[in-house]
Amino acid sequence: MGKLFVVGIGPGGLEHMTIKALDTIKESDIIVGYTKYLEFLQPLIKDKETVSTGMMGEEERCRKALELAKDKVVAVISTGDAGIYGMAGLILELREDEEVEIIPGVTASSSAGSVLGAPLMHDNCNISLSDLMTPYEDIKKRVRLAAEGDFIISLYNPKSKKRITYLREAIGTIKEFRPASTPVAVVKNALREGQSINIYTIENFDDSEVDMFSIVIVGNSKSFMKDGFFITPRGYKIDK
Amino acid sequence: MGKLFVVGIGPGGLEHMTIKALDTIKESDIIVGYTKYLEFLQPLIKDKETVSTGMMGEEERCRKALELAKDKVVAVISTGDAGIYGMAGLILELREDEEVEIIPGVTASSSAGSVLGAPLMHDNCNISLSDLMTPYEDIKKRVRLAAEGDFIISLYNPKSKKRITYLREAIGTIKEFRPASTPVAVVKNALREGQSINIYTIENFDDSEVDMFSIVIVGNSKSFMKDGFFITPRGYKIDK
Repeated sequence: MGKLFVVGIGPGGLEHMTIKALDTIKESDIIVGYTKYLEFLQPLIKDKETVSTGMMGEEERCRKALELAKDKVVAVISTGDAGIYGMAGLILELREDEEVEIIPGVTASSSAGSVLGAPLMHDNCNISLSDLMTPYEDIKKRVRLAAEGDFIISLYNPKSKKRITYLREAIGTIKEFRPASTPVAVVKNALREGQSINIYTIENFDDSEVDMFSIVIVGNSKSFMKDGFFITPRGYKIDK
Repeated sequence: MGKLFVVGIGPGGLEHMTIKALDTIKESDIIVGYTKYLEFLQPLIKDKETVSTGMMGEEERCRKALELAKDKVVAVISTGDAGIYGMAGLILELREDEEVEIIPGVTASSSAGSVLGAPLMHDNCNISLSDLMTPYEDIKKRVRLAAEGDFIISLYNPKSKKRITYLREAIGTIKEFRPASTPVAVVKNALREGQSINIYTIENFDDSEVDMFSIVIVGNSKSFMKDGFFITPRGYKIDK
């Protein structure tokens, strides 16, 4: 009897992976994932069968993993949390009678948040700016409503070679509802090799450092910078 | 020289903690946290000095931790991710010149999502229904805008002894914008002892199983149940 695990490995590398994710990968016969993510796991999987899927589409990859899981223990790897813009959903949509278990991980907004300080301390949302599977009209509507609701906003997939204006448009919309001093952070490769952080105000935001490995976090109307830390207050009345 | 780590331990227990969180706790001199959370960590901290803060307010606890961190290595524990409704923000607000590092963890919505299947696969938000530090009018506005924006909605602190109607009101608002069949899940003690799952439709939602250890996840307009799994499609066009 096989089994399929969908494993969120967190930001990359081994350090911020959960113990359950680590053990699951160790105990799996076959590891399936993008070439780049398999590289993160090299020390752990060097003696294992891997299915590297650089050239394969998502659906093909999931079907392959489900097929293998009929009689082997298979781990499909997503960065971050497998359940947030990861592979968990498509696996479960395609599943017939295979046994499937989802192992959660630290999602990208939590990783990025931790290196910035505490930007996500109040009500917050994740929005992907990728229009591959979502009409841009829906994305724009969601950004506007999140802005109006004063959510802290984490923008996933903020920019690709084909989509260069969506991020600027999103920031423009959010700016209508927030003070000019609202912090906006661009975090590239959070908690892994090549990490970089750039902090702007929403008034002076500049998207030149944003790439497809970045996440952009926009504070709510009460967020502020203090000693280099990006903080959103939870609302405690502090005795100063 | 001391240092203060603010550590998100994930859902509780050791299994879903990150390796970095585990190592940080092991290497700390003093562990500060709620009595109940310290119990989760017993095997790890039995020989360490602990500051259990059952009776202490959040501010007092954070001040105490910062004071201790002037010459000891101190870990302040939050469940879930310390940066999402955890202790990271208040620590950084109160910090003077102490060295502080935030260690991210698996937040409660990711833990609950993983035991349900893949409810959080598209744009999603976290909203706390606690009005201790946020006016209820602001909470209601945020729920309505998130509903209108078709976000998957994770409701933290859904009910306490004093707040028994907010959750029903929130579900009533979201229902105006979603199909009657939209799944709503109540997950209690996700990924730790005492875990329970109850699944409803938004039409037939019942809050009797909700308590202060629960999180409530409401699907977006495209979420559905399949073989017991709560799935929100990412939007792939699948060949069936």
